[in-house]
Amino acid sequence: MSIKVTIWNECRHEKEDEEVRRVYPESIGGAIVAGLEPFGFELTLKTLDDDEQGLPASLLDATDVLVWWGHRYHEELDDTRIDLIHRRVIEGMGLVVLHSGHHAKIFRRLMGTSCNFAWREADDGECERLWTIQPAHPIAAGIPPCVELPKSEMYGEPFDIPVPDELVFVSWYEGGDVMRSGCVFNRGRGKVFYFAPGHETFPIYRDATIRRILANAVEYVNQPHATGWSLDHWARPIPLQKGAPRQTLFKKPRGAA
Amino acid sequence: MSIKVTIWNECRHEKEDEEVRRVYPESIGGAIVAGLEPFGFELTLKTLDDDEQGLPASLLDATDVLVWWGHRYHEELDDTRIDLIHRRVIEGMGLVVLHSGHHAKIFRRLMGTSCNFAWREADDGECERLWTIQPAHPIAAGIPPCVELPKSEMYGEPFDIPVPDELVFVSWYEGGDVMRSGCVFNRGRGKVFYFAPGHETFPIYRDATIRRILANAVEYVNQPHATGWSLDHWARPIPLQKGAPRQTLFKKPRGAA
Amino acid sequence: MSIKVTIWNECRHEKEDEEVRRVYPESIGGAIVAGLEPFGFELTLKTLDDDEQGLPASLLDATDVLVWWGHRYHEELDDTRIDLIHRRVIEGMGLVVLHSGHHAKIFRRLMGTSCNFAWREADDGECERLWTIQPAHPIAAGIPPCVELPKSEMYGEPFDIPVPDELVFVSWYEGGDVMRSGCVFNRGRGKVFYFAPGHETFPIYRDATIRRILANAVEYVNQPHATGWSLDHWARPIPLQKGAPRQTLFKKPRGAA
Amino acid sequence: MSIKVTIWNECRHEKEDEEVRRVYPESIGGAIVAGLEPFGFELTLKTLDDDEQGLPASLLDATDVLVWWGHRYHEELDDTRIDLIHRRVIEGMGLVVLHSGHHAKIFRRLMGTSCNFAWREADDGECERLWTIQPAHPIAAGIPPCVELPKSEMYGEPFDIPVPDELVFVSWYEGGDVMRSGCVFNRGRGKVFYFAPGHETFPIYRDATIRRILANAVEYVNQPHATGWSLDHWARPIPLQKGAPRQTLFKKPRGAA
Repeated sequence: MSIKVTIWNECRHEKEDEEVRRVYPESIGGAIVAGLEPFGFELTLKTLDDDEQGLPASLLDATDVLVWWGHRYHEELDDTRIDLIHRRVIEGMGLVVLHSGHHAKIFRRLMGTSCNFAWREADDGECERLWTIQPAHPIAAGIPPCVELPKSEMYGEPFDIPVPDELVFVSWYEGGDVMRSGCVFNRGRGKVFYFAPGHETFPIYRDATIRRILANAVEYVNQPHATGWSLDHWARPIPLQKGAPRQTLFKKPRGAA
Repeated sequence: MSIKVTIWNECRHEKEDEEVRRVYPESIGGAIVAGLEPFGFELTLKTLDDDEQGLPASLLDATDVLVWWGHRYHEELDDTRIDLIHRRVIEGMGLVVLHSGHHAKIFRRLMGTSCNFAWREADDGECERLWTIQPAHPIAAGIPPCVELPKSEMYGEPFDIPVPDELVFVSWYEGGDVMRSGCVFNRGRGKVFYFAPGHETFPIYRDATIRRILANAVEYVNQPHATGWSLDHWARPIPLQKGAPRQTLFKKPRGAA
Repeated sequence: MSIKVTIWNECRHEKEDEEVRRVYPESIGGAIVAGLEPFGFELTLKTLDDDEQGLPASLLDATDVLVWWGHRYHEELDDTRIDLIHRRVIEGMGLVVLHSGHHAKIFRRLMGTSCNFAWREADDGECERLWTIQPAHPIAAGIPPCVELPKSEMYGEPFDIPVPDELVFVSWYEGGDVMRSGCVFNRGRGKVFYFAPGHETFPIYRDATIRRILANAVEYVNQPHATGWSLDHWARPIPLQKGAPRQTLFKKPRGAA
Repeated sequence: MSIKVTIWNECRHEKEDEEVRRVYPESIGGAIVAGLEPFGFELTLKTLDDDEQGLPASLLDATDVLVWWGHRYHEELDDTRIDLIHRRVIEGMGLVVLHSGHHAKIFRRLMGTSCNFAWREADDGECERLWTIQPAHPIAAGIPPCVELPKSEMYGEPFDIPVPDELVFVSWYEGGDVMRSGCVFNRGRGKVFYFAPGHETFPIYRDATIRRILANAVEYVNQPHATGWSLDHWARPIPLQKGAPRQTLFKKPRGAA
């Protein structure tokens, strides 16, 4: 059964900024969808200006993997919608956060840090080289040791994230900077992949190797057994071990402990 | 210079519940303070019912390490106060979260997960054995391989936390359960230690070994060079590498990227 | 294409010890093979007393995943054979090390530590409960929160291993002990899974849940893209970055640096 | 009490190669000693050509932290001496491995991988920038976000090491490469720090910031409570839990399990 992927994109730059429209006439989200199409996923494209900010509960419930590209309008997202997305990740929905999504509410909530970093948008971009640190990682399948992006925006260290559970890529920039640019984080039953490349004025999402990385990432963060038991607050008043002390439930009207 | 430690405690159980008052007449926070006193810290005890919920900004700014014991009233904490505490941890303030603090707003925010787990409060407690998994860890200094707590509340797996950066203790319970009960997490410049033992009706904070663990933890999460550079959103328009492309600042009124 | 799995087993206990023969008349290796059969792997069973200690280079080269059960005769393995196995793991061969294999030469070499732990073989065994710490991990697919093994040998903490890259299971023992009993380690391009249960006088490898864990582990440590580039000592005298300094090769007859 | 540091250095380049002698007339080891002197350690300098290859058992037993610089003669080290050093690290001795020590027997043994990486020795060196990834880490105390080394040898990814327990520095090179250049690994009770900079023909060990990093590393890998209990193979025939099954010792002449 194919993986159900929802690509969410602010899709405002494309309307506001001619330069972005020239690079991505089909919108950034559209370019991501086009890149994922050959891989057999079931793809849905949604934007901030769609109904319910593009992410109604019914769609989230039917989504295996959510791909996120946002930038200038992070704060517009309703907190209750972030609650929903957050709950879905904890339940096992995969999440791929791209580029400027580092400051998206959902990413910051999942990380628990500021997610700040250094940045420089050189006027005509600068060269980025993405080094594969874990060549046997599923997200690196088919990817060479080094991927060169001739024009990129610099996103660099120090990057205020928790230590990633898996560090797949580290980037080099022409201007002298480095970045942990491909990071996996486990949160609840869900997997999150942050991937730094992808500025709105450079056609990075048309690059075949980048598209392969995105497809690998979608497959990797998809949890094939997400329908299993969940990580609930779980009262176990009767111990598994015979003869061990037990709890008289409802003795006192208590909370968790 | 001695470490400035603020012990924060809800301090409501002690007023509401005779059983807790009998075990901790000096309050849970008072018992923690008494346990830390021989170690030479500068100790301040605060409670939920103090001014500004016990945690004014001026106190937080002067705190090196905050020790947290809360249980039933997590939701009363103002979100703006949690913002302050959160910012201080990212800046480098140490945080020790005890027992039922797993559901405290500040802990959940730093973790990005539900922090749910399994639990059982056997009527007269049950035996917990705390095993030292990393004997050379500073928090385990002077601690034997196994610490026995004859009466404890069971807090067990699955525990919905991110993978700890350091797993120092794993607990065994009489009823058949296990728990990652001593965990270190790095967040920003700050260190967070979660420690599971410490139910309000068992005198665990009077145990000499537990007190040593708490003192070790305070020393460990204290960051001696917290006054260094911070993890800010950092524009670097001029590259370090000579001749590399630079950014014309203010060309367009942009956000982070 | 099905995964090629070689099950290696000392297969001496079965000849020397009537008790073991009674529990595993088909040998321990034979029971593991029987358990993996329904999962569609291509299975080969080898023992210490076969030609070339059961592991000729040609077989290792054709093996995707090696499953290891050894106990009393670890030291008989030739170091040159261990070199071969080690090289294959670095190249991407999966390795599943079972129970007393913790002291096998190949496991100690991959870990770099003593791999010591505590142990107790209660006369008629004791209850072990295996808790699933990472429910969404592929090795935990279809596995309940807790697996009860009524009769087991205790293998307990402190366990002198490097911090596992992934901790999937933690065990509880009737006698008061705990163990990180299901651990994943990445080494080179290879994945290693250590799994503690499986004493020779208890029929643990007949348990359907344990068999599912073993099958999951085989699938997980198998690296589908192991034929990619390898982690060699790699001279790059000509820099990728145009105009950057280069190395005049063979200027002086040098080693790596 | 001051930390007892043994600086071990091959000290052959300095005799064989005029270029090295010109940069380090006092030898590489001598420069490291000079750099550590202001920090109050008790320093001993030893070389490969000293008695017992510079590392008699009595000296190792009295060493808190061993600093290692080797390059061309790794294979000359006796395996029994490596056994001794290895045992000492497991017991808690700190180890700082510098530059070309990545291929030293002791480092490869502790890692369990090939420790291969990419390299380029540009004729007159190339610029390396060391980025501080974990600014609050004790090894980064007093270190700025970026340390520039105008002339360095490139040591780059992919680096075949296990995932570091702590990644403190990542390097950028002029030629387009990156490197996890400052890595902490825990092995047994010991801490190991690998630090990439330090080629024999560039005066990197005279750089004040590099010296501070080395001093911080010595303090960090020193284990103040290394005299505690050790990680032995530990028989526990009598369970801690009363009434649980016990083992009749010596029933049969058995090994560990």
